[in-house]
Amino acid sequence: MANITKKVSWSSRCDEFGAVGEETPLLNGSDQARPLRQMSSGSTVFQIGRLSTVDLEEEIIAEEDSASGRPKEIAHNEKLLSLKFESLDYDNIENQLFLEEERRMSFLAFRCLEISRWVICGLIGFLTGLIACFIDIVVEQLAGIKYKVIKENIVRFTEAGGLSISLILWAVLNSSFVMLGAIMVAFFEPIAAGSGIPQIKCYLNGVKIPRVVRLKTLVIKVCGVICSVVGGLAVGKEGPMIHSGAVVAAGVSQGRSTSLKRDFKIFEYFRRDTEKRDFVSAGAAAGVSAAFGAPVGGVLFSLEEGASFWNQMLTWRIFFASMISTFTLNFFLSVYHNKTGDLSNPGLINFGSFESEAMGYNLYEIPLFMAMGALGGLLGALFNFLNYWLTIFRIRYVHRPCLQVMEAVLVAAVTAAVAFIMIYFSVDCQPLAPDHTEEYPLQLFCADGEYNSMATAFFNTPERSVRSLFHNPRGTYNALTLGLFTLTYFFLACWTYGLSVSAGVFIPSLLIGAAWGRLCGILLASTTSTASTWADPGKYALIGAAAQLGGIVRMTLSLTVIMMEATGNVTYGLPIMLVLMTAKIVGDYFQEGLYDIHIKLQSVPFLHWEAPATSHWLTAREVMSSPVICLNRIEKVGTIVDILSNTSTNHNGFPVVVQVSVDDEPAKLCGLILRSQLIVLLKHKVFVELARSRLTQRKLQLKDFRDAYPRFPPIQSIHVSQDERECMMDLTEFMNPTPYTVPLETSLPRVFKLFRALGLRHLVVVDDENRVNGLVTRKDLARYHLGKHGLEELHLAQT
Amino acid sequence: MANITKKVSWSSRCDEFGAVGEETPLLNGSDQARPLRQMSSGSTVFQIGRLSTVDLEEEIIAEEDSASGRPKEIAHNEKLLSLKFESLDYDNIENQLFLEEERRMSFLAFRCLEISRWVICGLIGFLTGLIACFIDIVVEQLAGIKYKVIKENIVRFTEAGGLSISLILWAVLNSSFVMLGAIMVAFFEPIAAGSGIPQIKCYLNGVKIPRVVRLKTLVIKVCGVICSVVGGLAVGKEGPMIHSGAVVAAGVSQGRSTSLKRDFKIFEYFRRDTEKRDFVSAGAAAGVSAAFGAPVGGVLFSLEEGASFWNQMLTWRIFFASMISTFTLNFFLSVYHNKTGDLSNPGLINFGSFESEAMGYNLYEIPLFMAMGALGGLLGALFNFLNYWLTIFRIRYVHRPCLQVMEAVLVAAVTAAVAFIMIYFSVDCQPLAPDHTEEYPLQLFCADGEYNSMATAFFNTPERSVRSLFHNPRGTYNALTLGLFTLTYFFLACWTYGLSVSAGVFIPSLLIGAAWGRLCGILLASTTSTASTWADPGKYALIGAAAQLGGIVRMTLSLTVIMMEATGNVTYGLPIMLVLMTAKIVGDYFQEGLYDIHIKLQSVPFLHWEAPATSHWLTAREVMSSPVICLNRIEKVGTIVDILSNTSTNHNGFPVVVQVSVDDEPAKLCGLILRSQLIVLLKHKVFVELARSRLTQRKLQLKDFRDAYPRFPPIQSIHVSQDERECMMDLTEFMNPTPYTVPLETSLPRVFKLFRALGLRHLVVVDDENRVNGLVTRKDLARYHLGKHGLEELHLAQT
Repeated sequence: MANITKKVSWSSRCDEFGAVGEETPLLNGSDQARPLRQMSSGSTVFQIGRLSTVDLEEEIIAEEDSASGRPKEIAHNEKLLSLKFESLDYDNIENQLFLEEERRMSFLAFRCLEISRWVICGLIGFLTGLIACFIDIVVEQLAGIKYKVIKENIVRFTEAGGLSISLILWAVLNSSFVMLGAIMVAFFEPIAAGSGIPQIKCYLNGVKIPRVVRLKTLVIKVCGVICSVVGGLAVGKEGPMIHSGAVVAAGVSQGRSTSLKRDFKIFEYFRRDTEKRDFVSAGAAAGVSAAFGAPVGGVLFSLEEGASFWNQMLTWRIFFASMISTFTLNFFLSVYHNKTGDLSNPGLINFGSFESEAMGYNLYEIPLFMAMGALGGLLGALFNFLNYWLTIFRIRYVHRPCLQVMEAVLVAAVTAAVAFIMIYFSVDCQPLAPDHTEEYPLQLFCADGEYNSMATAFFNTPERSVRSLFHNPRGTYNALTLGLFTLTYFFLACWTYGLSVSAGVFIPSLLIGAAWGRLCGILLASTTSTASTWADPGKYALIGAAAQLGGIVRMTLSLTVIMMEATGNVTYGLPIMLVLMTAKIVGDYFQEGLYDIHIKLQSVPFLHWEAPATSHWLTAREVMSSPVICLNRIEKVGTIVDILSNTSTNHNGFPVVVQVSVDDEPAKLCGLILRSQLIVLLKHKVFVELARSRLTQRKLQLKDFRDAYPRFPPIQSIHVSQDERECMMDLTEFMNPTPYTVPLETSLPRVFKLFRALGLRHLVVVDDENRVNGLVTRKDLARYHLGKHGLEELHLAQT
Repeated sequence: MANITKKVSWSSRCDEFGAVGEETPLLNGSDQARPLRQMSSGSTVFQIGRLSTVDLEEEIIAEEDSASGRPKEIAHNEKLLSLKFESLDYDNIENQLFLEEERRMSFLAFRCLEISRWVICGLIGFLTGLIACFIDIVVEQLAGIKYKVIKENIVRFTEAGGLSISLILWAVLNSSFVMLGAIMVAFFEPIAAGSGIPQIKCYLNGVKIPRVVRLKTLVIKVCGVICSVVGGLAVGKEGPMIHSGAVVAAGVSQGRSTSLKRDFKIFEYFRRDTEKRDFVSAGAAAGVSAAFGAPVGGVLFSLEEGASFWNQMLTWRIFFASMISTFTLNFFLSVYHNKTGDLSNPGLINFGSFESEAMGYNLYEIPLFMAMGALGGLLGALFNFLNYWLTIFRIRYVHRPCLQVMEAVLVAAVTAAVAFIMIYFSVDCQPLAPDHTEEYPLQLFCADGEYNSMATAFFNTPERSVRSLFHNPRGTYNALTLGLFTLTYFFLACWTYGLSVSAGVFIPSLLIGAAWGRLCGILLASTTSTASTWADPGKYALIGAAAQLGGIVRMTLSLTVIMMEATGNVTYGLPIMLVLMTAKIVGDYFQEGLYDIHIKLQSVPFLHWEAPATSHWLTAREVMSSPVICLNRIEKVGTIVDILSNTSTNHNGFPVVVQVSVDDEPAKLCGLILRSQLIVLLKHKVFVELARSRLTQRKLQLKDFRDAYPRFPPIQSIHVSQDERECMMDLTEFMNPTPYTVPLETSLPRVFKLFRALGLRHLVVVDDENRVNGLVTRKDLARYHLGKHGLEELHLAQT
């Protein structure tokens, strides 16, 4: 069962050699964390004595063996908090090197940096738009070929009988595409599975998800999403765009690709968490913008998910990236459609234009809309509930890549079969107007000049189906067709989400909602005999789509704006907002949002906006981890190596104190240093003794730290000889001399606010003498959450 | 000259008895601050000894006399920073009382609070919408009557001659309306002058502007704006809506009106700066939303101006308020227009619907648009430059209310005269189509069935003129008309902004821009002989309007979204964004934005988003104010009274230390207490000795502090007897025991980030022993700004 962690979990220690968490031993942690603490709660001096007699290499191997020897229990439980995930640091390390560099820089240099930021954002937008364009065109081409082949086949066999052959052809075509996509994802890059939105949410929240912004992930994601959409799964290509945009941003902004081993020697200033995270926000926004043609919605999405501190210029840049992205997509699609300059395709999904005159709503319809919102919330909660159990099942039993591929293929075949059966038994024939917009009208058993209405919904890319539900004239669908379609597609989509394929859940949600929304419209219209325009089915389809999507993903402001921009009409602002609000309130009563469920199942230490309301009785004293391993300002190399090599603790930040006392008494704080910095120092052997002997040696610069970012080598790869272990290291120049601190008595909400607003990674807790008493990290805060029975504390786990 | 401060300046000490700044004596302040420091830089012990022998009342009078005796130099200079303005505190005072209350509250109670917040936001939106509706209807009615009377008069005299009588009638009508408005503003509430946007910007930034959110201000504002719009000034009614929304929010959220002396005993929990500021954000957003029919733009405006820490739920509530506001306006206007349910008036200004088919743009037009953006930036800079000198002139010479009224009347008369002359000499006659949309077509000297085209621009409310420039068909205006109109209106608008009337600058800017934009369109169209649709004048009018508005106000993201929402069309997103960006870049090169100029002229300590880029060489040690007056945890009442009564320092926050040392040595920090808290404590005589003797006395509660909020009595109004002066006060329970602190060596950007992100009012600077070394307040940070020659330091002044 060992490889479950590797393939299912977002983070995996075995894969990332030396991936480490910044946890500190806990006094008030869970039971699982307890043995761990006892191992390290002895004084550091003791540990140093113990380890220094052992050969370092052997020690590591021994540690590793014992780790892999013990069966890795996967604690995929939302009551756990994984210690595996690292945090991003949104706080600059203002050490002497950094300050010197900043002070040397002229005003002009800052201007140039600002201009580079704009250029990068433009590039991010452009590339994201191009990727969206590529996906759109390839999907359209391949899907076109597929539907044409199947249609010809169906037409051939309709008269002659033997439609089962068509069914098999359809199922086989779908399965092969899906198999291709699933193999890529399951065997080469499991992190590319799904929509990627939960992962990007976590990244923007400040959690480092391994491999999530790599080039390889992008390639697999793009190919995977093409395969799964062409393979006819109940999925959309919109969610993955957000992930793609984020990867593009992370790549472009760093001016190099670690995967391709190319360093363009540009944008070196941006090689740190602070800047990178800003650009990833822009990338995610550009992705949303390209997916839905919603540049403002994209900005709001990024802000809603990511920003803690609002910065005007940053937001403006994010908006620029979004605009360029939708414009690029729009422009290239217009070229592709031979209508250069006709900018009518701002996004991958277009809701088509809702004319405000024909589609106005009345005041008394608002309660109806809100009722639909409530229904959407209920259905969304059901969807999430089913998907939750399905995910648990998958984690337990479907963890091998081959099994995952098989499941995906099965789903593809079942989807095709169900669609075929639905179409086959449907008796809903509609006349085919001369100016029809149906791409692949299937006549099947209908009379000449008519087409099967069920086929419009099933025998089509989901984007087209959504649009036809919104805009097809009254009477295009009958109620039974819509009811059956909703029912089957609901379960198909629910089964599909979480498969090992790249795919989003936005479009299926919209489709389900549009179907039952239109159904509501038809039923309402049938209550009155007058053929008034009051219950326009397209309008109700839109409301239903919003309700269902809101019920599943539970996004708020950004989703409202995305829907408003996608309809290109502000008239629907108020109803959409009310519907989304109702859906969220009703849905939240039963179950969390789909993305939050998946984040929780991965035990990610996700920080919400505020500390739980009823947590004022907790103070930093209870929340913090202690005792903390501190370093002296001038520390022995051996001690540092031993502390870093201690795999049972794997701390990432170390307070630097004036003098570590022998009896574990707290010492006076004078700085904070990170594991990554220590590693670079060790690698370059910045030892006091060596500096004295080799006077000509070049001084360590900020560039050395930037070159190592973000994949710092593990401590095991750095060789430190026995002689060197006796040397001393002076940390003064490299530590952050002014880390943020809070007193012991600070309440949790106050600690939380500081931590969240500044995007910290470590917060030192000091007593009234400025002595280090503890350290607060992300896990210490994310542990507390508001459950149904008041404040709950999650357990910490090593998984 | 003493009353200049009263009438021109936003803050005035003589008006607000006991209005105090939180400045601390400065070691590194300006020359002007130096004498001040010397007065107080002696040890507190010395001061106490000196003052305690003097009768308190006498001392105050003496101080006051000397203050009014010395001529009050008004340092209206943008290189000064006034010490008059207080800060809002966005950080909760987490003292024992607060924590006890929070801990007592159940989860359900927090839920109820959350629901009240939503209710309040709904109310804010509703009331703001109603006010907008009221303004719109009254303006329309009055303007209708005015134009009808004048038109009849003109028609009567056109044939007969003697049009000078019409001119006089027009000028008199305009002047009387304007005089009414100007009298109200100049004599009763000078803070209601202008658009109120600079004031709201400051408030959202965290600066307390006296009287800005009072009921009286709202009443004067609403009446004033009606008078000035009906009076035919070159003003709009949109800007004041933002101010009105903010006042509504500040009133509703507190559940009482101090002006009306009514306390509804509701929403008491929200009586503190933190909550109030959140609601005022919502109010401002609701105002924008009602003004432009732009709910998303409203949210972004509030965020751009106010938010430092982004909070999802707050933003969602702000959006709710915005939506309700535009919906309310829309609904009541539809009822008023007898088209109940036809929601086509989402804002006070409607750009009309831009059909994307007819108005698409081509890629090669983008450089043209950007050139127009640059022109807009240039013209905007010119506008701001002229207005800047005009404002300086006004501050120097037009400071008496009667002079201000006279100036306003003069402008009104001149506006009418200029308009009349322009119309009179215009030869631009256009045929009057049967389905014309002209409200008051003036035939004048045109042939029958024709109307004077210049009159559409001048003889109309500015909103209507904007709309007709956007939408009137090609050829409605000739180039000369537009050129002359732009020229005259530009100077009229520039002269008008800053008058002592309530009025906004949005609509005049849009109108100027639309006029020259349309002119550009006409000129471009004339370059090609083919009658193609490429240079649609309406489209160019829109771009010109955006460019001009952007060039004057320099807003970024929010303005783009406002323009997008007002046009109801996302197609123009990219060009509008590019135009606004170009206008801002070009304009910023010459001159700041109009609002920023007016904020600077008031010497408001306005905090920008980030510390100046080149300020890394400054540390907290240089920036902070020191020495700081500290209090003991248990302090003598006399000492406290003396410190609070010291009008030369007027500190607002006092670090509480373990033991104030005699020789001014820094002592160990243990808390922070505010002037307002001390005043409440003194008022309720919370003395250690009294508590012992009167055991039954009720304990002071948080409610007592809330009741006093926000108008805490001045220290002079509290009588402390000589016996009581010898009592002791225990501050432990009331001080904030965990104030945020930074070490001495923290760099300015780091201090700035903490201060800004958390919206602090006081930040204690401590040394490595946790001893108080200094205090950083808003002025200490706002002092540093990036001038043309690098980092500049503003001087602090008492004005």
